[in-house]
Amino acid sequence: MTGVREPQQERSRTTRRRLIEAALDSFGERGWHGVTVAGIAERAGVSRGAAQHHFPAREDLVVAAVDLLGQSQIDELRAQAADLPSGASRIERVVEMVLNLYTGPLFRAALQLWSVAATDDALRDVLVPLEARVGREAHRVTVELLGVDESRAGVRELVQATLDLGRGLGLANLLTDDTRRRRQIVREWARTLELRLADSR
Amino acid sequence: MTGVREPQQERSRTTRRRLIEAALDSFGERGWHGVTVAGIAERAGVSRGAAQHHFPAREDLVVAAVDLLGQSQIDELRAQAADLPSGASRIERVVEMVLNLYTGPLFRAALQLWSVAATDDALRDVLVPLEARVGREAHRVTVELLGVDESRAGVRELVQATLDLGRGLGLANLLTDDTRRRRQIVREWARTLELRLADSR
Repeated sequence: MTGVREPQQERSRTTRRRLIEAALDSFGERGWHGVTVAGIAERAGVSRGAAQHHFPAREDLVVAAVDLLGQSQIDELRAQAADLPSGASRIERVVEMVLNLYTGPLFRAALQLWSVAATDDALRDVLVPLEARVGREAHRVTVELLGVDESRAGVRELVQATLDLGRGLGLANLLTDDTRRRRQIVREWARTLELRLADSR
Repeated sequence: MTGVREPQQERSRTTRRRLIEAALDSFGERGWHGVTVAGIAERAGVSRGAAQHHFPAREDLVVAAVDLLGQSQIDELRAQAADLPSGASRIERVVEMVLNLYTGPLFRAALQLWSVAATDDALRDVLVPLEARVGREAHRVTVELLGVDESRAGVRELVQATLDLGRGLGLANLLTDDTRRRRQIVREWARTLELRLADSR
């Protein structure tokens, strides 16, 4: 039995993954309004029937996409964590990672969804609880990476501010390449966090 | 002559202003794709011909709208500046002003435009230089309000980070009311800036 079922399950997972990735590319490039499940199926090289089996509506693809998106950001953070130095230079590396988190194509896709959700209640109802969960996890990983004690006064807010700053820098990088300016902000923000978090580590 | 020309000029200015405000409301509520110059004219209670005289294309309305949007934010900051206390509590008030700057309907409208511009080169070419100018002015006003010396090392980056954090908080406030969480971030960031800017004032 297992020999028959496993490849099927794996095929199904691959199909699902390809559809989600095609959806993210499509949302990022053409926005919510330019995208249909049928169009995403074609892009993914998957039959329309199979696509609709996995994702009956665009909203279902959004749930899966935001989940994948959030999870890959968290995974990326964790993967980089292995190479982190200890000591003071650790904070600068973590700040760099977090402030670069929202400058890629995944953030572009998310922004397209957010801007539509701002005027579309159905999409907003789907996105808000998802974003809250992804946000909480990003927060927890950042606390871990910084190695700070969140029960100390002010630590939670400074970690939140770092993630919010990251999203703001993602916005600033949307229409132009903001890498150089961001690099200087990373350095200064790291210095600031070192100062404020010195006795929370 | 003046008696005849002035009311005409004034009428023209009023028409223009009403069109821009209707455009901002429309972009914010329905997004770029849901909006036409004709629709905006109707919303503003202006004839289609008059609307097209002032703004031949949606892009022209965007230029005017972003200009108005940026300028009203700067004006708002300056208006509040008159009531600022001196001393340490000044920084907390300024931080509060800047971090609340991007939580209103104007930011919503701007975000709709940005997200479209991310996939539309013509709109991006219009927006980028405008945003750069508005950003520079917001930066200059913030430096003035804080009363800091920007030639000191790190000051420029901390002011930039404050504005980028404001935009990130605007994003966090897009789909839910983030006021309570933002208030705590304001308090903590104000404390941090006081510490970092203490010898730059």
